[in-house]
Amino acid sequence: MKARAERAIAECRRIAAMTEEPGRTTRRFLTPPVREVHALLRDRMEKLGMSVRVDAVGNLRGLWFPEGAETRRLMIGSHIDTVPDAGAFDGVLGVTVALEWAELAQQMRLPIGIELVAFSEEEGVRFGVPFLGSRAMAGRFDEKLLGLHDAHGHTVAEAIHAFGLDAGEIHDAAIGPDAAAFVEIHIEQGPVLEAENAPLAAVTAIVGQTRGSVLFKGHANHAGTTPMPMRRDALAGAAEWILAVEQAAKRTDGLVATTGRIAVTPDASNAIAGEARVSLDLRHAHDRVRLAAVDELVARAQTIAQRRGLEMQWTSLMNEPAVPMDERLTAFMADAIEAAGYPPRRITSGAGHDAMVMAGRVPAAMLFIRSPGGISHHPAETVLEEDVEAAMEVGQRFLERMAASLR
Amino acid sequence: MKARAERAIAECRRIAAMTEEPGRTTRRFLTPPVREVHALLRDRMEKLGMSVRVDAVGNLRGLWFPEGAETRRLMIGSHIDTVPDAGAFDGVLGVTVALEWAELAQQMRLPIGIELVAFSEEEGVRFGVPFLGSRAMAGRFDEKLLGLHDAHGHTVAEAIHAFGLDAGEIHDAAIGPDAAAFVEIHIEQGPVLEAENAPLAAVTAIVGQTRGSVLFKGHANHAGTTPMPMRRDALAGAAEWILAVEQAAKRTDGLVATTGRIAVTPDASNAIAGEARVSLDLRHAHDRVRLAAVDELVARAQTIAQRRGLEMQWTSLMNEPAVPMDERLTAFMADAIEAAGYPPRRITSGAGHDAMVMAGRVPAAMLFIRSPGGISHHPAETVLEEDVEAAMEVGQRFLERMAASLR
Repeated sequence: MKARAERAIAECRRIAAMTEEPGRTTRRFLTPPVREVHALLRDRMEKLGMSVRVDAVGNLRGLWFPEGAETRRLMIGSHIDTVPDAGAFDGVLGVTVALEWAELAQQMRLPIGIELVAFSEEEGVRFGVPFLGSRAMAGRFDEKLLGLHDAHGHTVAEAIHAFGLDAGEIHDAAIGPDAAAFVEIHIEQGPVLEAENAPLAAVTAIVGQTRGSVLFKGHANHAGTTPMPMRRDALAGAAEWILAVEQAAKRTDGLVATTGRIAVTPDASNAIAGEARVSLDLRHAHDRVRLAAVDELVARAQTIAQRRGLEMQWTSLMNEPAVPMDERLTAFMADAIEAAGYPPRRITSGAGHDAMVMAGRVPAAMLFIRSPGGISHHPAETVLEEDVEAAMEVGQRFLERMAASLR
Repeated sequence: MKARAERAIAECRRIAAMTEEPGRTTRRFLTPPVREVHALLRDRMEKLGMSVRVDAVGNLRGLWFPEGAETRRLMIGSHIDTVPDAGAFDGVLGVTVALEWAELAQQMRLPIGIELVAFSEEEGVRFGVPFLGSRAMAGRFDEKLLGLHDAHGHTVAEAIHAFGLDAGEIHDAAIGPDAAAFVEIHIEQGPVLEAENAPLAAVTAIVGQTRGSVLFKGHANHAGTTPMPMRRDALAGAAEWILAVEQAAKRTDGLVATTGRIAVTPDASNAIAGEARVSLDLRHAHDRVRLAAVDELVARAQTIAQRRGLEMQWTSLMNEPAVPMDERLTAFMADAIEAAGYPPRRITSGAGHDAMVMAGRVPAAMLFIRSPGGISHHPAETVLEEDVEAAMEVGQRFLERMAASLR
């Protein structure tokens, strides 16, 4: 298992050098370095005896069945696109570990079909919309997406054509009833497992997410000539609300709420802010808790605005419900973690993943691997070799349970 | 006096049409419309029997002495440049009222010399540095200022030359010991007199001013994957400090403190702010109070930063001491207000004025005229005719007192 962990990590490092920008890792949807990644992964898949294809949206898929009848199959995979100036493990580690799991299944002679998937797009960097790869496999690829433009004015359809694929065949990428389940292995991208000294966790749900912004409107008076009691300071109102958001989230178990953007006008050091807009990103695994928190915080903004003589407008930009992972598969995963000798930690994922999209079509589960320092989307992103080794141990036990359940 | 008020206001409206930009009033230092303003004012001055000149920095100056000996003279004036998209009264009203005061002095046959001044530059718009006109008259025009560039790459020296003036003669603009005092009439540009139902006030001091910024540094983690207790949110720290600034200013009589600018990085709705920089503009008529407040607020920022695991840096950008107006002249002004039948209100000026610069060379006083709605630096800026009429009544009584004191 140690050798498997070393190999999975080494492959990530090799793939990180396949990049659009020399000296740093940036690999967006269907850009030239994706061909290099496909060549490397195709070679690995073919050595496992898999039949390999690239579907019309650019997902690389390797299919293998045990000798005898073709059974329903377990899909395992993650994405191979990256954010700009990325680390080596976000997405890619889920593919290189999946290769090891597939070989384990073969060596154990488990009566289970396996489809390895390297999703072409998850980050949403090139066209501004994420999950292009898993949307196609889940049968949820809206044709309008083909018309999206990248920064150079090229459409998704043109990118697909330039890669030698046929956008007219995207519907063929969708999985059918012969797909029994989907499992994704992914780095945590957060600090929770490190803080709890746990190498791995089974993911119970992808949190639901609300995004929006509050605009406070006051009056942009002169900083020198307007006495304090006569001010209607939009930034002071915004500051009060930012702290209210923080306090509400700290009070509620599992809630994360972030005010990451702020813009004021006139934004001059000698003028009281006449307007201030603050973003809200609020996430929780239970939609009821999330929606109640949003309602409370919008009401709170209204109260602050009234007391300060400001106007307030709430703009809702996104409301994505939480996506629970399949309970039975998640129990298999937690049992496998425990059977391998690790604490059977269950956590929610605060970020979106391909498994969230796939879960709309097929039972899905996720395994998180600890992220040292909680660092991701940064060249310093890393993993511990011992944690990847643990993921091999867990894979062996999870695959046994899956095979038994599909029999 | 009513006719004088009407004329002073009407002249402001005429001058507002002399602009760089059709449809709105913008008149920067030594731009073409300044020639039109000079022509109008020169005509008015000459009709009062004044000898008129434009000094080397573009101040228009009309000098008049009563029959008999040339006495020491009282200077009265304000500026004729404007901010972009300005109102009609900021600065200009101080010149048109001064013309009426000069005629009053002549009609009263007061034994007092008068020099009317239309300062060429006060706002600092064209070259980024204010008070070019009064600096020259106060003998404080640093020759380095001639090398400043405007947005088109022209220097102050070139602007002076293009206007037909000789920058080599700026030292001749400086006043000598024959200048006995300077008085400036100006709109308040704030809401205090309106709130107190007072048409006028004597200005006791131009407040001192500190400008700087506080930078909070935390860690820019992922909004979804970082639990609340593990965050080091720079914007939340900044919000706490913004409210501390507001509270400190509300607690301290006469203190105004403004956080008008804020910038965060990465400024993304799905990322916790790693850095947040907030501006501070803090003003008070007593330097001791101002400096103590700055010290308190910087210490407060440090406390907030420590509690939140942030770093904090304070950058000081400006420290201008308060400039008191001359006590005797200010008493004349307050007495004149009272003698004219109005409440003898004394207030501080929260904004800078030419009188602040002139006070470095000669005893100076200011008369504020109420600003309806506190509005200034905006096309909606206005004055009440009855308030300008009150300024005429006060002028008559102030000039009598000045004449008696200079005898």
